Amino acid sequence: MTKIAILGATGYTALELIKILLRHPDVEIVAVTSRQEGQPPVAMIHPSLTGRLDLCLEDLSPAEVAARAECVFSCLPHGASAQRIIHLLDTDTRVVDFSADYRLDDPEVFATWYNQKHADPDRLGKVVYGLPELFRDRIVDAPLVANPGCYPTGAILPLAPLLKEGMIQPQGIIVDAKSGVSGAGRTLKLTTHYPECNESVSAYALGRHRHTPEIDQILGTAAAAPVEVIFSPHLVPMDRGILTTTYSQPTADVSEEKVLQTLRDFYAEEPFVRVVDHLPGTKDSVGTNFCDITARVIRGRVLTVSCLDNLIKGASGAAVQNFNLMYGYSETTAL
Amino acid sequence: MTKIAILGATGYTALELIKILLRHPDVEIVAVTSRQEGQPPVAMIHPSLTGRLDLCLEDLSPAEVAARAECVFSCLPHGASAQRIIHLLDTDTRVVDFSADYRLDDPEVFATWYNQKHADPDRLGKVVYGLPELFRDRIVDAPLVANPGCYPTGAILPLAPLLKEGMIQPQGIIVDAKSGVSGAGRTLKLTTHYPECNESVSAYALGRHRHTPEIDQILGTAAAAPVEVIFSPHLVPMDRGILTTTYSQPTADVSEEKVLQTLRDFYAEEPFVRVVDHLPGTKDSVGTNFCDITARVIRGRVLTVSCLDNLIKGASGAAVQNFNLMYGYSETTAL
Amino acid sequence: MTKIAILGATGYTALELIKILLRHPDVEIVAVTSRQEGQPPVAMIHPSLTGRLDLCLEDLSPAEVAARAECVFSCLPHGASAQRIIHLLDTDTRVVDFSADYRLDDPEVFATWYNQKHADPDRLGKVVYGLPELFRDRIVDAPLVANPGCYPTGAILPLAPLLKEGMIQPQGIIVDAKSGVSGAGRTLKLTTHYPECNESVSAYALGRHRHTPEIDQILGTAAAAPVEVIFSPHLVPMDRGILTTTYSQPTADVSEEKVLQTLRDFYAEEPFVRVVDHLPGTKDSVGTNFCDITARVIRGRVLTVSCLDNLIKGASGAAVQNFNLMYGYSETTAL
Amino acid sequence: MTKIAILGATGYTALELIKILLRHPDVEIVAVTSRQEGQPPVAMIHPSLTGRLDLCLEDLSPAEVAARAECVFSCLPHGASAQRIIHLLDTDTRVVDFSADYRLDDPEVFATWYNQKHADPDRLGKVVYGLPELFRDRIVDAPLVANPGCYPTGAILPLAPLLKEGMIQPQGIIVDAKSGVSGAGRTLKLTTHYPECNESVSAYALGRHRHTPEIDQILGTAAAAPVEVIFSPHLVPMDRGILTTTYSQPTADVSEEKVLQTLRDFYAEEPFVRVVDHLPGTKDSVGTNFCDITARVIRGRVLTVSCLDNLIKGASGAAVQNFNLMYGYSETTAL
Repeated sequence: MTKIAILGATGYTALELIKILLRHPDVEIVAVTSRQEGQPPVAMIHPSLTGRLDLCLEDLSPAEVAARAECVFSCLPHGASAQRIIHLLDTDTRVVDFSADYRLDDPEVFATWYNQKHADPDRLGKVVYGLPELFRDRIVDAPLVANPGCYPTGAILPLAPLLKEGMIQPQGIIVDAKSGVSGAGRTLKLTTHYPECNESVSAYALGRHRHTPEIDQILGTAAAAPVEVIFSPHLVPMDRGILTTTYSQPTADVSEEKVLQTLRDFYAEEPFVRVVDHLPGTKDSVGTNFCDITARVIRGRVLTVSCLDNLIKGASGAAVQNFNLMYGYSETTAL
Repeated sequence: MTKIAILGATGYTALELIKILLRHPDVEIVAVTSRQEGQPPVAMIHPSLTGRLDLCLEDLSPAEVAARAECVFSCLPHGASAQRIIHLLDTDTRVVDFSADYRLDDPEVFATWYNQKHADPDRLGKVVYGLPELFRDRIVDAPLVANPGCYPTGAILPLAPLLKEGMIQPQGIIVDAKSGVSGAGRTLKLTTHYPECNESVSAYALGRHRHTPEIDQILGTAAAAPVEVIFSPHLVPMDRGILTTTYSQPTADVSEEKVLQTLRDFYAEEPFVRVVDHLPGTKDSVGTNFCDITARVIRGRVLTVSCLDNLIKGASGAAVQNFNLMYGYSETTAL
Repeated sequence: MTKIAILGATGYTALELIKILLRHPDVEIVAVTSRQEGQPPVAMIHPSLTGRLDLCLEDLSPAEVAARAECVFSCLPHGASAQRIIHLLDTDTRVVDFSADYRLDDPEVFATWYNQKHADPDRLGKVVYGLPELFRDRIVDAPLVANPGCYPTGAILPLAPLLKEGMIQPQGIIVDAKSGVSGAGRTLKLTTHYPECNESVSAYALGRHRHTPEIDQILGTAAAAPVEVIFSPHLVPMDRGILTTTYSQPTADVSEEKVLQTLRDFYAEEPFVRVVDHLPGTKDSVGTNFCDITARVIRGRVLTVSCLDNLIKGASGAAVQNFNLMYGYSETTAL
Repeated sequence: MTKIAILGATGYTALELIKILLRHPDVEIVAVTSRQEGQPPVAMIHPSLTGRLDLCLEDLSPAEVAARAECVFSCLPHGASAQRIIHLLDTDTRVVDFSADYRLDDPEVFATWYNQKHADPDRLGKVVYGLPELFRDRIVDAPLVANPGCYPTGAILPLAPLLKEGMIQPQGIIVDAKSGVSGAGRTLKLTTHYPECNESVSAYALGRHRHTPEIDQILGTAAAAPVEVIFSPHLVPMDRGILTTTYSQPTADVSEEKVLQTLRDFYAEEPFVRVVDHLPGTKDSVGTNFCDITARVIRGRVLTVSCLDNLIKGASGAAVQNFNLMYGYSETTAL
């Protein structure tokens, strides 16, 4: 039985995390924190938790959290997250960080994309990126895991194997992603006001989305070469799910079957990646920790299509997968 | 006053066409046909027309249609459409064809993509493609106008000016389109059954969609060079609207402002193309005959984003725009 | 040509009003006001108006408005609306008020339901309720018209004829209404944040909704007896449309056909009420100024079902219908 | 470990059932049948099951099913279901029937509402109605459980306690229900074609819905008096969830708090009924086996609002709850 605290428990990733952990036989949630909300029952903020989790939101210091919990999931925004994690890591507490604070290796890159100095620059480059399919070995013993962004997971899982195998060129990769609205969080904005975004598709943050350097970095590692993707996120009128279409150039003539076989081989033992022949829809994986992937070769380009639930495989499910690895539970427990 | 008949009036494009024509001061709808449905009032098939159009669906021969109407809008499926139009054109009747039958110049290309011999191959190559922004002059006197497909309109309007100016390379253009479900028509299919496609995004017909050769052909004309786009349509859970994101390589270093200015100049006089600086959403143009376009330059690639209503600028609105040109009415009447 | 100003032009009813007025051949929009937004182009706030209305939002005093416009549509919130209208009515300006300020006859009732003293209590009881189907004669010459609420229109149109005819009892009428989200306005709220209200139905303000006394008052007039409805509004995940189901007890045994015929007779000459035999869906009337009505008799109860577009027949379409009557234009112009 | 077969596995309730059973530690799914589909892998029909259930659909006789499985869940349509169940009950197999075949006690009532003679009339009146909150004791040993309809569950749970306590009158109860589209099943129909039902609310089958006599019967038992509800189902554009609003007359003056306390007391020990003070939305219970209930007293009427997931508490979750009771597992296992 592992005692768990959740920092920043008022948002959607925290809600999803709680729902998953309530199914986990070896976990006890001992604290849920919020900086703003007084101490209301968490079920008042998340009515779906009524009768399921009998805790109040508390504004706890890192020391207070560490005194109660063995493992902390931080659902705080970037910046705020690192400021707490620094102190937690001084104790024995292990941390899974949902924010972007520890995903990038280079403090300069962080400063450029996040418009702020990093609070803990010396640790960057030493924190494992929590994508078990690529970095499982390093996750097992990690004191801190940087849980991947939702878009990066959808882009990296289909592309990394092809780059590792040298099957596609690292230059000029296009990542056109279509996301449900929960990815934009629970903070009120006009763009996610129902009558504004319902029955509408839009592109946003073209070329400026903060997940860009994260995709570049991990794909660059896979390719052993610099990668700079053209990343275009789109907002789609649905609650959950990301479909990511990528376009890249093969390094040599390649058949569709060869691309698919490369993906199948790479993920043959993975419990949560399904390489499929058909074109998946996001609904096939929504509510699960699966990422569905397929590939096509069209007029000499390699296309991949991936689908995942942005709140599960793209956030809270991945976090529990990491947690299971860190604490020696079966990787699929509760997922 | 022009007398109009609508062939194949049970679908969504016909419904939208009727709604637009009911606002047109110089039009009288004299016949609505259907091959299958007996002779029910059209308002029984389209309840929104109750009290607005007091006609019954009839199964009329081309001769019967020509005896009543001066202008025919054919909303029949490909194949069936040409078979009727051949006979209509033997009379004085002028035709706007919503099907793909007369859009392609080459009967071989038609046969390849539509899996059938063309019924009227000799006319191919002589029929004007009904995109007023590119071919207005030829539309005015045309006996037959091939109304463009919805996806092609969304791809051609942003790309054609850039190809004409030699600003982007004709090779390797990617067209990633996101469409609402009405584009799939009114025929029942599992993929458009509500619980299947609601709350889900999916790619379909990758590399095989029949609008591909149409985009190739018109962009090829604009570029004065062969064009073979990589075209990826996606189904998005909303009724209407297409957002099209394109990716191409500039022929030389180019600024975002230069690309935008090229588009602004090209469409300066156009009543239905709005070149905007912000990133448009489909909701901005749904219910209208506008196509909204913008452009970005990201990491050396030229991106365009366009939005339109697939049933209006992508079908019935464009058809009425063509009709207005053909009959000397103000181009924007009823639109 | 009538010169028009719109007060409070940043919301959804104002946007819809502008779109309708842009189709009106005898209208010129001369001012659009907003108290908060600086003086941005209205198309910056409503991107769908790009290229269609070239005005900036201004913060104008009633005197400034009156100097420019002959007719004012006030889309301001209750309270704020009356405060401006008092001054406008001192000039020759005529006003259509979208707010609830002049709908109720009794300042006490207003104070009870709206938690504030009325700014113009002496005028209450003398302002016509802008439902042409019931009060057309009084609208024609009115200096001020109180445009009805969306829910009241959906409840009153089916019930008033049956009460007038003494066919149903005035006591114990149940009004169960289902509304799209645009009815909640453009102000950001957690309840209308996309991931909260999408894929969910909820009841709200049961027994406390401010449209209740308005329904009571108008139905009471129709019945010539006190009416106190049980009114239950529900929020449904769609942009627009209200479906209202009512339940009442007949005063004597009555057949379904008799109820339907009473409705048909009452609305025989009305251009915007369609009494239908089938069960209408909101989609049949969305985008139009129609209200569709039908009735059933089930186990001795009279049920009515009505559908309308809350932003058109429930707000801006009704307002233009009133305007047309006030200024002697054909009642259906632009609708 | 209990061996389970699922009859009629191509629909939405079967899919949901499979997903729940895959989480059940004491269950093995040994057969999934379909009458029509050849023998494709079940994951071909339900792509979300890819990699999760490695069975093919088979067309098995009752004897073949009984040879493999100890417990059978029948997701067949009414009529077809009883025809199989008759034979299964001749073996030791126990059955949970999702269809309406064994819910009604009276073959005449069945014949009237379902337009067919019952295939097994002698068994009617002896089969337990599978609502554990009312009939738990009889479910434990039952060879056959008639799993309740989704609408009846949403109507009965809030009303039965009030009728049992004599707090509301059994006459004139109104049940106004709003359901997501998955309740209409997976068979293609124009009414559930996406562009028809999206962005629209409609009433259907007013006074004729087949769940009416089922509600009457169970509430009649609770009231110990005849009950004839006025039942109005509505279709709402969302995948899942039913919100049911009921209206009834109290037998004597009663406070809201008294009504709520009666509900709280009745369900105090129930694991899946949450009596809440706030007005619940369907989203709070979607994806769970909970039914959320609240009550209001408005202008002398008692209103209740209940929410549940039509595919879980309204179908497959209830079925597993019944199964757990029948086989001695903890009632909440897998739920």
